[in-house]
Amino acid sequence: MAKQQREISVSEFFTKNRHLLGFDSPTKALLTTIKEAVDNSLDACEEAQILPDLLVEIVPVSENRFRVIVEDNGPGIVKEQIPRIFGKLLYGSKFHRLRQSRGQQGIGISAAGMYGQLTTGKPIVIESRAGKRKKAHHYTLVIDTQRNEPVVKKDREIEWGKSQGTRVEIELEGVYKRGKHGVEAYLRQTVLANPHVTILYKGPGEEEVRIERASNALPEEALEIKPHPYGVEVGMLLQMLKDTNSRQLKGFFQSEFSRVGPKSATSIIEASGLSTTTSPRRVSAERAEALIATIRETKIPAPPTNCLSPIGEERIEASLKLQMNADWYTAVTRSPSVYRGNPFQVEVGLAYGGDLGADELATLYRYANRVPLQYQQGACAAFKAVLATNWRSYGLQQSRGALPTGPLVIMVHVASVWVPFTSESKEAVASYDEIIKELKLAFQEAGRRLGRYIKRGKRIADDERKRKYIEKYIPHIGIALKEILGLTDRQEKKVVDTLTDTLERSRKT
Amino acid sequence: MAKQQREISVSEFFTKNRHLLGFDSPTKALLTTIKEAVDNSLDACEEAQILPDLLVEIVPVSENRFRVIVEDNGPGIVKEQIPRIFGKLLYGSKFHRLRQSRGQQGIGISAAGMYGQLTTGKPIVIESRAGKRKKAHHYTLVIDTQRNEPVVKKDREIEWGKSQGTRVEIELEGVYKRGKHGVEAYLRQTVLANPHVTILYKGPGEEEVRIERASNALPEEALEIKPHPYGVEVGMLLQMLKDTNSRQLKGFFQSEFSRVGPKSATSIIEASGLSTTTSPRRVSAERAEALIATIRETKIPAPPTNCLSPIGEERIEASLKLQMNADWYTAVTRSPSVYRGNPFQVEVGLAYGGDLGADELATLYRYANRVPLQYQQGACAAFKAVLATNWRSYGLQQSRGALPTGPLVIMVHVASVWVPFTSESKEAVASYDEIIKELKLAFQEAGRRLGRYIKRGKRIADDERKRKYIEKYIPHIGIALKEILGLTDRQEKKVVDTLTDTLERSRKT
Repeated sequence: MAKQQREISVSEFFTKNRHLLGFDSPTKALLTTIKEAVDNSLDACEEAQILPDLLVEIVPVSENRFRVIVEDNGPGIVKEQIPRIFGKLLYGSKFHRLRQSRGQQGIGISAAGMYGQLTTGKPIVIESRAGKRKKAHHYTLVIDTQRNEPVVKKDREIEWGKSQGTRVEIELEGVYKRGKHGVEAYLRQTVLANPHVTILYKGPGEEEVRIERASNALPEEALEIKPHPYGVEVGMLLQMLKDTNSRQLKGFFQSEFSRVGPKSATSIIEASGLSTTTSPRRVSAERAEALIATIRETKIPAPPTNCLSPIGEERIEASLKLQMNADWYTAVTRSPSVYRGNPFQVEVGLAYGGDLGADELATLYRYANRVPLQYQQGACAAFKAVLATNWRSYGLQQSRGALPTGPLVIMVHVASVWVPFTSESKEAVASYDEIIKELKLAFQEAGRRLGRYIKRGKRIADDERKRKYIEKYIPHIGIALKEILGLTDRQEKKVVDTLTDTLERSRKT
Repeated sequence: MAKQQREISVSEFFTKNRHLLGFDSPTKALLTTIKEAVDNSLDACEEAQILPDLLVEIVPVSENRFRVIVEDNGPGIVKEQIPRIFGKLLYGSKFHRLRQSRGQQGIGISAAGMYGQLTTGKPIVIESRAGKRKKAHHYTLVIDTQRNEPVVKKDREIEWGKSQGTRVEIELEGVYKRGKHGVEAYLRQTVLANPHVTILYKGPGEEEVRIERASNALPEEALEIKPHPYGVEVGMLLQMLKDTNSRQLKGFFQSEFSRVGPKSATSIIEASGLSTTTSPRRVSAERAEALIATIRETKIPAPPTNCLSPIGEERIEASLKLQMNADWYTAVTRSPSVYRGNPFQVEVGLAYGGDLGADELATLYRYANRVPLQYQQGACAAFKAVLATNWRSYGLQQSRGALPTGPLVIMVHVASVWVPFTSESKEAVASYDEIIKELKLAFQEAGRRLGRYIKRGKRIADDERKRKYIEKYIPHIGIALKEILGLTDRQEKKVVDTLTDTLERSRKT
């Protein structure tokens, strides 16, 4: 038996378990590929403070085969990094960093390339230029799944019209769907939560569509933070003690954690029976446990929240107005909060009335770090929080266990340095109590505003109805009086005017 | 930005995403740890054709901290393999093999050790002896999560009473629960689907419990098979063409695949515009595509099914009888079938009446490759197939979208060389059409038998009622006749006997 024991590369693992990454059906595979490429482009543009202009194109190759192209105007990628970013799973810059970004794991785009390779045998094609003064590079590469390493097939300098940007091309087996769950709808949802983005989209055999930005303002830059002590466990602490450059415990605590000043560092260390000058490497597992226990009893301020970049109420409203034709809009951005030491922040937008379907269940758009979530709605904290909110008290109908009914779009955004997804395919946010609570508070605030609007709307409608009655019946009374009393036309008009005026005045008081 | 790009080890990935492996809550973490150790022990024992005798012990260390010990009488592990099997994720013997086994990925036990290390800082302790003539070894090791490599802390020879076996000890933070979803219930469910296993269990502060085997017969050995051509895609074919030792395409097809003989090999190759003597390494991506297209149009027999080892109808019934006190039992083992080229087989057992709760929803026990599935019932093919079966036609009550109601236990086993789980934590089987179909057929067969039993039961109950009427009223008729006709006691008795006899005979016809 011993001879058969061997290492399994992470690429082999995910090849066999591709459903874990969102490649379980041909329709989903196509959408996931586009999603991963778009996520990467937007992260790169924002990190370089560039307003993103994306091109997304799907070229049909045969019935169930497509070439997906995503091109951006981002900062480009330095030549040396290209093979590993696109041809190695679990490689990236975002995993070891506490900061809000779309990508987290360093898996997505390589997995999409691997799926393409698996279903069509075709390599992934990358072109990238890292600025005017640099040459553009063309790469063709495949993944050696047994070693999880890129194998470069072609590598050459090319002429490129653009001064900077990256273009990715993946050929894959897939199924193209239009409509509510199609690619165009997905891209529209993306722009809805990213009002600074413009996407030019060309579906297979379709007209080019331009989904325009609602705002020229880039999102606030999200900064990197250190871990907060409340989110650290013994094992992680031991690792940090081993890895640190600090020579003394006090310095270690101050430099490696958020919100630990000299005073709290000293008190944590001394309360755990250690000295501030102890070398971090010499702290035993038992002492590390004592440190964790002390930390949990110490009052430490909440982590900084400049690691988050919410969309903002104003921009959510503007974006909703641009993307859908409703009568009324509102948005709520909550203050940041914390789960397991990780800062997070929730936002809710509502659009009501107008062209939205009045007799249908409300439409829920879910986002995590500005990325639309398309599947597993039932498993998502956002969905659960909508159900746990009593929308009837805001003037809507709602059956038990269901979304409210009415001409309503609910948009939910959860932003965090580490979104707790229920699976790697990032389809649903795990139901941490803290997240559910914040979501409910946001729904309540937005819901109250909606309730007021709906009530006001009802009052106006009542008024309107009464006014219509007056308009309708008073002329008849005029005609009747004229006949009975033998009034002249002028007298009749005067009676009608007086009556209308009196009733209007009585109606308004 | 380029400088921050770096490799993420699979251990780091799963440390941060521990919920993906079933360590998302302290209760689940404890159960998952036991599950992983038990799965490994059972796989090892069966592979070595040893009747498994397991010891499972949970020693309380402090309120939310436990030491989990699992010891087996298996073949032991050779010294050199121990560190990597227990201290490296994605390492094992089962991933690259098409054969029914509990473990698939080479992640489980190392992940459990990593979780223990993370929450308590304590290493994993392994003792193992690979036979009488070998020395027993004691290992203490941790995982270097940044490199996904084991770090051995202690390594020494020890005296061990047993001639062979393996003992694993993991200390972790957890919550211990009793009852329906507790550890003992889990182990009982394990023995239910593994009637050849005996487990001695000692919970924290509890009496020792012995869960006894129902059968001394080991399961049929599952053999390894080659992949079936229908389950192969272009990318995988290209990889196989690269890796093969065959020098000619014909030999390649015959040796690397199931069910491809010389005739079909030749016809596939020639229909794809290639020659049987072509070197596999020289087949282009385009030609590989042509091969795949031809394969899909070629009639190839279903894969061999000796890679599967079902429990068997007789043993399921025996096991149900031993484990629960019901009135009636049945079991159905379907013939093997195939999804995406992978052979699979489903089995269903029913227990009805007796001590089982009559007014509750039926209890569903789900198994995949003999391992109980504890979570995510709603997402599982087995659950969906139960709902899609009309149990009312078998004499049970059933509301829409719910399990049937009645004193019923439904046991479902899906065995396959590659069980398509919906997540790495292996909690639910994905709903492939072929699997759902087989499950429904098995439920129907078992359900029809149940329906006959329930109907017979109803007939017996009717009979019983009629008999009671006779017993109750005839004596009164006797008394009345005696009074009216002035009969003697003997005459009265004779009349009563004659009447009873007549009515009994009429009732039975």
